[in-house]
Amino acid sequence: MSGTTIGLAARVFDSGRVRSAVDERLAAFLDAKARLAIAQGFPAEVTDVLRDLVLGGGKRIRPVLCVAGWYAAGRDRDEDAVLQVAASLEMFHVFALVHDDVMDRSATRRGRPSAHEAIAARHAGRPGAARLGLDAAVLLGDLALVWSDELLHTAGLSAERFAAVAGVLDGMRTELMYGQYLDLLATGRPSADLEAALRIARFKSAKYTVERPLQLGAALSGADDGVCAALSAFGLPLGEAFQLRDDLLGAFGESPETGKPAAEDLREGKHTALLALALSRATGADRTLLTRLCQETRREPGWVARIRAVLERTGARSGIEELIEERRCQALRALEGSGLPPAAGATLRSVVSSLIGPTR
Amino acid sequence: MSGTTIGLAARVFDSGRVRSAVDERLAAFLDAKARLAIAQGFPAEVTDVLRDLVLGGGKRIRPVLCVAGWYAAGRDRDEDAVLQVAASLEMFHVFALVHDDVMDRSATRRGRPSAHEAIAARHAGRPGAARLGLDAAVLLGDLALVWSDELLHTAGLSAERFAAVAGVLDGMRTELMYGQYLDLLATGRPSADLEAALRIARFKSAKYTVERPLQLGAALSGADDGVCAALSAFGLPLGEAFQLRDDLLGAFGESPETGKPAAEDLREGKHTALLALALSRATGADRTLLTRLCQETRREPGWVARIRAVLERTGARSGIEELIEERRCQALRALEGSGLPPAAGATLRSVVSSLIGPTR
Repeated sequence: MSGTTIGLAARVFDSGRVRSAVDERLAAFLDAKARLAIAQGFPAEVTDVLRDLVLGGGKRIRPVLCVAGWYAAGRDRDEDAVLQVAASLEMFHVFALVHDDVMDRSATRRGRPSAHEAIAARHAGRPGAARLGLDAAVLLGDLALVWSDELLHTAGLSAERFAAVAGVLDGMRTELMYGQYLDLLATGRPSADLEAALRIARFKSAKYTVERPLQLGAALSGADDGVCAALSAFGLPLGEAFQLRDDLLGAFGESPETGKPAAEDLREGKHTALLALALSRATGADRTLLTRLCQETRREPGWVARIRAVLERTGARSGIEELIEERRCQALRALEGSGLPPAAGATLRSVVSSLIGPTR
Repeated sequence: MSGTTIGLAARVFDSGRVRSAVDERLAAFLDAKARLAIAQGFPAEVTDVLRDLVLGGGKRIRPVLCVAGWYAAGRDRDEDAVLQVAASLEMFHVFALVHDDVMDRSATRRGRPSAHEAIAARHAGRPGAARLGLDAAVLLGDLALVWSDELLHTAGLSAERFAAVAGVLDGMRTELMYGQYLDLLATGRPSADLEAALRIARFKSAKYTVERPLQLGAALSGADDGVCAALSAFGLPLGEAFQLRDDLLGAFGESPETGKPAAEDLREGKHTALLALALSRATGADRTLLTRLCQETRREPGWVARIRAVLERTGARSGIEELIEERRCQALRALEGSGLPPAAGATLRSVVSSLIGPTR
């Protein structure tokens, strides 16, 4: 499938243009699937719910990084293919979000009802609607995953380019699943083990969100191992910083900002670096209080405010900010010593603050 | 990845050899993944549970049909590629089984604990182990799906062959998901609508289990549209007959035979053709009884026996046997008029009774 191109051949990388081009492709793809559903008599709710989720929000971080990696590695070949792969990456991300929300029983996503809630609402009044929503969302996520493959399969790649892309993609998907698995096993068991928390962050987020999308774009430019290593040296610390910023949002962010229920990481008992740092730094009464708050299953009003206060008092919040800055510097230093052309460096530098905010 | 070849170049199609060759590849693939998990410090339970499920049973219907389609269409190119695609198809099937069992909360599969039960058992004693098992099994299924892609990506196909295979595969996956979705929406609401039940069977089973695997193998032989149409004319009725046989097993089969809990379709309130036929044929007291039994949520001992008795008395069981025979004849007639070479016809005829049993 070949969508509209949007002048990416322009010399300057423009993330806004990437977003619109990817959105156009996703909308066209889902429109075609909706028409197929009508023709075959399949329930329309599948593409309706998916469309709301795909096009109703999201920052398109992974597609933007994929195209940035393609720019950084020299923009070999047609922009059509890279945009299609970028769209495939976003569809894959939607799969991951839908299943993540099922596992967390999370009520909202991108400021709207999550997929399982949206499906349950469509069957409100039917016995077992909540369970139907969860089960149907498993299938909806599966469809998003196989449709991300379909987007990839129709990108018109040569056998050589496809093999390079598939190598990166297969690694990325396996890492993400294991990262999610580690996250699941650690949920409800927060501990002072910062290294373990950072390890989860590395697999479920740093590699998946930053390093691999950059490398995927580079693979589409036929980049060599040197370029891939440079993108990795830049992308991994940036990706970790991204997850640490996300930890702060998951504890201190409010719904309008995050599109998710407030303090959801805290409520779910996620083993985040933030909580690990607080548990390792807390002493005396704060240690007792934090441990107790983490274990409480019947939570009184003010539970979130009290846990947030401990995260502040122990210096965990500012400690995470410091870890973010360390990683920002590490990523930027890696860029300086990377040997990438200046234009590539400029493209990559331009995505840093959009991912982790401006330097404090 | 290139596994051992097993002399498939032999002139006569041998389904037993296909099974062993596919099993070898799956075992080697999962061994490599288990080694990766050790090297990376990922939990070993992922590959352990998957290995038990993949290699602990199963008839390898789809891989056998894929290779049969390849034979029927002329066995172009190397057998290595077709065996790898067949293994990928089986890994995809494992994904489908794992998620199916999550959605049905089914306790067993292939005569062993289902994936979510196996994971829950490994975490027995931990609070929320059952829920952890279900959530982790969603991820386990996701991994099986992305690993089925990895098997496909490493089959060494040319761009042209890959595009042909991907076209069939993408269609198959979308059909299966919609079939499952229709099944989910109809579960708990059995009705006398036989057409609706057959429609579900067509998408979730007939196309997925028989028609598409045959076409996938044919695509690997570079088959033209005529061969694909012939395989479809043979595969669709055979696939419907397979699902109808499965309906009978899901109602009358016992665990040792099916590897699933006895009468699971009945217990789950699946909208099967069998139940639809019974509901449309039942009159008087039987109609009242069957409707009541279907609606009962608190089921007394003997519930299964009573519902089975109605399925017999209404003639629904023998009616389904008739529908199976009709479809068997239709498939065999399609083969006669197909224009396929005699050897291809012989290969395809050889799989019929293994799928739906001997003629009664």
